[in-house]
Amino acid sequence: MTFWNEELETMPVEELKEMQFRLLQNEIRTMYEKSEFFRGRMQSVGLTPDDITDMEQFRKIPCMRKSDLRDNYPDGLFVRPYDELVRIHVSSGTTGRPTVVGYTQTDIDNWSESLARGLTSFGVGKKDVFQNMHGYGLFTGGLGVHYAGEKVGATVIPTGVGNTDRQIQLMQDLPVTCLAGTPSYMFHIADVCDQKGVDIRKQTKVTKALAGGEPWSESMRKKLYDRTGIKAYGCYGASEFYGPMFLECDAQCGMHVWADLTLIEILDKDGNPVPDGESGEVVVTMLQKEAFPLIRYKIGDISTLTWEKCRCGRTHPRLGRITGRADDMIVVRGINVFPSQIESVIGEMPFLSPFYHITLTNENYMDKMVVDVEVLPECLPDDVNAINEMSAKVQARLKEILNLKAVVKMNLPGTLERFEGKAKHVTDNRSWD
Amino acid sequence: MTFWNEELETMPVEELKEMQFRLLQNEIRTMYEKSEFFRGRMQSVGLTPDDITDMEQFRKIPCMRKSDLRDNYPDGLFVRPYDELVRIHVSSGTTGRPTVVGYTQTDIDNWSESLARGLTSFGVGKKDVFQNMHGYGLFTGGLGVHYAGEKVGATVIPTGVGNTDRQIQLMQDLPVTCLAGTPSYMFHIADVCDQKGVDIRKQTKVTKALAGGEPWSESMRKKLYDRTGIKAYGCYGASEFYGPMFLECDAQCGMHVWADLTLIEILDKDGNPVPDGESGEVVVTMLQKEAFPLIRYKIGDISTLTWEKCRCGRTHPRLGRITGRADDMIVVRGINVFPSQIESVIGEMPFLSPFYHITLTNENYMDKMVVDVEVLPECLPDDVNAINEMSAKVQARLKEILNLKAVVKMNLPGTLERFEGKAKHVTDNRSWD
Ligand SMILES: [Zn+2]
Ligand SMILES: [Zn+2]
Repeated sequence: MTFWNEELETMPVEELKEMQFRLLQNEIRTMYEKSEFFRGRMQSVGLTPDDITDMEQFRKIPCMRKSDLRDNYPDGLFVRPYDELVRIHVSSGTTGRPTVVGYTQTDIDNWSESLARGLTSFGVGKKDVFQNMHGYGLFTGGLGVHYAGEKVGATVIPTGVGNTDRQIQLMQDLPVTCLAGTPSYMFHIADVCDQKGVDIRKQTKVTKALAGGEPWSESMRKKLYDRTGIKAYGCYGASEFYGPMFLECDAQCGMHVWADLTLIEILDKDGNPVPDGESGEVVVTMLQKEAFPLIRYKIGDISTLTWEKCRCGRTHPRLGRITGRADDMIVVRGINVFPSQIESVIGEMPFLSPFYHITLTNENYMDKMVVDVEVLPECLPDDVNAINEMSAKVQARLKEILNLKAVVKMNLPGTLERFEGKAKHVTDNRSWD
Repeated sequence: MTFWNEELETMPVEELKEMQFRLLQNEIRTMYEKSEFFRGRMQSVGLTPDDITDMEQFRKIPCMRKSDLRDNYPDGLFVRPYDELVRIHVSSGTTGRPTVVGYTQTDIDNWSESLARGLTSFGVGKKDVFQNMHGYGLFTGGLGVHYAGEKVGATVIPTGVGNTDRQIQLMQDLPVTCLAGTPSYMFHIADVCDQKGVDIRKQTKVTKALAGGEPWSESMRKKLYDRTGIKAYGCYGASEFYGPMFLECDAQCGMHVWADLTLIEILDKDGNPVPDGESGEVVVTMLQKEAFPLIRYKIGDISTLTWEKCRCGRTHPRLGRITGRADDMIVVRGINVFPSQIESVIGEMPFLSPFYHITLTNENYMDKMVVDVEVLPECLPDDVNAINEMSAKVQARLKEILNLKAVVKMNLPGTLERFEGKAKHVTDNRSWD
């Protein structure tokens, strides 16, 4: 069993928690001084950095949300001038405005450090040839994983997304041992290999994969292994942290959250911590981030965290699979979708009633989204062409807003279900078994 | 005037040439020892490293060509095991097989060093925000320029290719000072800004651009400046070297070829060196490359090289614009095309004669390729649909082979021009004025 930074990764838990709290106090002090935004948050509840003497006090700091980043578009949260920033990533806006995140050189180094520990924890190192099928560019997945692959000394092949034929050709022609990409793309690779008669076990050296960017399951892990001999390891992160950050180790029982870089709280609906290992809302604090504050950030995911020592020997806590969302966001083909976005498109269409319903299904782990909408009685069309035109119009606008193809189904007036109280807008029939 | 590495960049010419030759001897010794391929080339003309005592002796070494890389696909030229390689780039094959290039950490560092000197030479540094619109991934442009931007401490925004609306939004919303991309894409950005009523001079801080990846001209430089206030600087390189490597300095009179990293010869048709500043074939030798030998590599370009001291104070020689090709390769929308590839597609089509002609034009610097082909008399179709089907078939296959959309024009038997001797297959009516 090898480690990237053995002393730190196996530090006794009590020492580690002490170090984590010292780093937390330090980050709070720095951001209080540098960030008008964060100072305002602290002051709004009458706190100064000196008050943060324990976790109970820390939990009095109001949580941040995605909207705080968007409201401060583009760079209102940055606490460093541009000449101290070396990178900017931008994620597509789910409600118009994109989210802009900045990095100092230390931020980039800590990001790579986090992933380098993770890659090492499932055995990726100098001897590996690492085909990175995550998208490069503004998306953090590609470059994040790329830098980490180089850091551990693997040979990185930056194939990026798409061009499946070439991906498969390179997997065969070069001694690729590890893939990185979304789980659904790995199944697509497996399908195309089947069609081409390529036996991944016999015609490639690939035995490992870093799987991230969308939900998946134990049963998908098993299926992928049975079909291809590839062992897949999970990943957690978001561009607001740095990007993908926390990976599963060889023990495959959760993703190690490096306690010197990140503090994750799991809270119940009242904002109180749940017992170790129980499910709740994930709240993330970055402990050494320099470019902007990310303190008590409610990312909206539901999961578990345990400090129980891992079989791999690492003492840093483990985050479980993401089992749901705290808000009504849905993730379709890796894209964040809010029902409110669909609502706004429907609102733009003079021929539609405000009632709608979203149904999600998947086949071979590829998501399909059907949006049921309802024609207003006064706009009832008199022929099939007119109906098709209406649905094409809604579909085109949804594509524009969501960057996602949805099937739009037109319904007769009054036929969509009405709800008492809060409407149930989404039926998620997807399965990752 | 600032330098990235002043001592080295302004070293007296004689010292620099001495250092260059020592590095050359050293590289030849290393590659002779490690590379069976290169040793074979030396032995084929009865040379050992000890014989290389001056440039005349050096010029006895047979030249390498692209085909040497392709014939040794994928990794037959590599002289380092994979655990010493940290990166692989792959360029699309112009004749089927892609070209695979490997990098040690030192190779990556030297590549970034080369570009860092170049960026500094036209004033890009810590204070800049650098929007990199080159494609990321297997193509060397994106990652090469990205690493260099970070190295000089600029804030890199890795936007990659495409999504022009977002490119323009980020140019306006963030304090972007410098763009990198192809010249034609910069004109496209200027066009879209005009359509949107965005005044680049007033609504952005962009004043500089690194322009590379396709041919352009002084008149394009002037037009871009007149329209947008952006000063564009040229770039030369190829994935066989490392990637893009040599940039224009502020003096804008050629691209500085760093003499400690690369030796460029300019040869006449008989393989003899032309006088300083005169035109000839570019032959490239990489002096510190580790992953594989690139010694006397005929890349196929025609240009000039001068050791005359530059106004900027740098003593390293300057490469002029690429004015043509030594072989019959043409570059269409940044993609290398050989007439022989088109010939092979035509050969596959049972209904075509072997005669063909390629006509290139451009509009707003966007290339268009028309391929005239001739139906065999016995295959003359009897209706328009059948003709359209034929041309669609040829077009689809050309797209597959060239990764490029060509317009295919069907001609009646015997109507394409026949040539005595060597056929003239290409008419290039493109203009970069
Ligand atoms: Zn573990
Ligand atoms: Zn100069």
